[in-house]
Order: sequence, then structure tokens, then C-alpha cells
Amino acid sequence: MKALGTHIVCELSGCTPSILTDVDAVREMMIGAAEASRATIMEVAFHRFQPQGVSGVVVLAESHISIHTWPEMGYAAMDFYTCGDHTDPWLACEHAARVLGAGNMITTEVKRGVIQSGHNQFTHIVTRDHDSRVLSA
Amino acid sequence: MKALGTHIVCELSGCTPSILTDVDAVREMMIGAAEASRATIMEVAFHRFQPQGVSGVVVLAESHISIHTWPEMGYAAMDFYTCGDHTDPWLACEHAARVLGAGNMITTEVKRGVIQSGHNQFTHIVTRDHDSRVLSA
Repeated sequence: MKALGTHIVCELSGCTPSILTDVDAVREMMIGAAEASRATIMEVAFHRFQPQGVSGVVVLAESHISIHTWPEMGYAAMDFYTCGDHTDPWLACEHAARVLGAGNMITTEVKRGVIQSGHNQFTHIVTRDHDSRVLSA
Repeated sequence: MKALGTHIVCELSGCTPSILTDVDAVREMMIGAAEASRATIMEVAFHRFQPQGVSGVVVLAESHISIHTWPEMGYAAMDFYTCGDHTDPWLACEHAARVLGAGNMITTEVKRGVIQSGHNQFTHIVTRDHDSRVLSA
């Protein structure tokens, strides 16, 4: 199967609330995650909500990484989506979980931009469904 | 099942190449998609690649919408992720498919931020896997 990209849908629980509410710390973590995956950063956009919570995206030459945080629940919803053989979104995912101090990580991996034979149509395939990992945070 | 959000992973094929390569047209479509879903736009970030292709994200008060285009293949990889009962990411998805002139749409819906009973841990559940729709573009 040839896919243009790999997209990881990721829920991180038990994260450090003080990081999840700090837009500068979240932005720095996201840039570090992009670099860890060997991707190239094109744009960044972050927003700090009141009373708490951060949303942000790093647009890559190879797709994007996103985060939405609920500090009051220690929860971050993240996506790691990169294209090309030179990148590895799992490296970004592991970086994020480590920096955020996550205690639990649940991920689903989707291969995207899979060409259907005989058509000029693209599909996606869930390749790892609902992996659960307890982290030694 | 109570989920914080709904995330649609979407592959659009047979799109109009001239739109997919036009960063202004893509940005306008994305803003329209966010509005269609009844979400509130907080930030936008777009990039036009050389020789072709656009990547961009609209950060919402309710999560995000993203796009990555391959005009030479008529292909757009999109995500529609919104939180809260007042939004409907399917309205954004249908808006995007219509404006881009997609001939085929493949989607997977994931419920995110699902709390696991007895834990303070969040998971996600694939609720509609790999829906394929031929569009009358």
C-alpha cells in the first residue's frame, strides 16, 4: 500500500495542567514536536482561551500538527499528520507526550492519500486502531 | 456516549485543480466551511507551495479545520474537528466538497474526548468508518 501520508489521532490524559494552559510552552512543545518528526515548519497559529485552554496548529511542508487543551481535565487532543518518507509523526507524538507529562496516550493511525487501483480516487485506511499506552510520566 | 468533539477525516478526489492551487480561494472556502458548521474562527494560517499546492488551517473556538491540496491530482486531504453541541462538522465537510467540486468523498468520523468510566482518561471511538460517497459535481 502506497500512502501519501500518515495521520495519528491522539488523546493525551494526565498531562501537567500548568503546561496545557501556557500558550508559549505549548507553542514551544509543538515546534519541538515538528522538529522531532523531521518536518519543516511553514506557519504557526495559536490561541489562548479564557479562562483556560490553548488551541494551536503548526502547518508543515508535510501537512500539520494540532493541539487543543483542557487544562482543568489534564487532557490534550492532538493530531500528527505528516507526508513523505523522510518524516515520522510518531516521533512528534512521543515528544508531545513526554513534554506534556501525559500519563496515558490513546492513538489511532490512519494512512491517508491511498490511491485506489484503476481510479484517480484517494482513500484512507485505519492501520492501528485505538492503541492504548500507559506512560511513566 | 458523551464526547467532547467530532472529528471527520476526509479525502476529496476529482476536485477542481484551479481552486486547489489558489490560496485565496482555498482560504475563502475554509472560512465558509467554518461558518457553515456554526463554529467561531480564532486564527487562520495558510501557505501556498511552489510549484503548486496549498496547506492551511482555521483554528476555531471549537477545534480546527485543515486542508492540504495536490492540484495535479485533484486531491484534497481535509479534517473537520469541532467540539460542542452547537456545531456540526458535517456541514463544513459538505460545504468544502461542494466548493471544491469534488467528485468523490471518503470520510471516517471519530468521536474524541470520550471519558472512560471510572478514570480521568480520555479516549476516542471510530463511529463511521470509511464512508464513500459519489458526488454529483
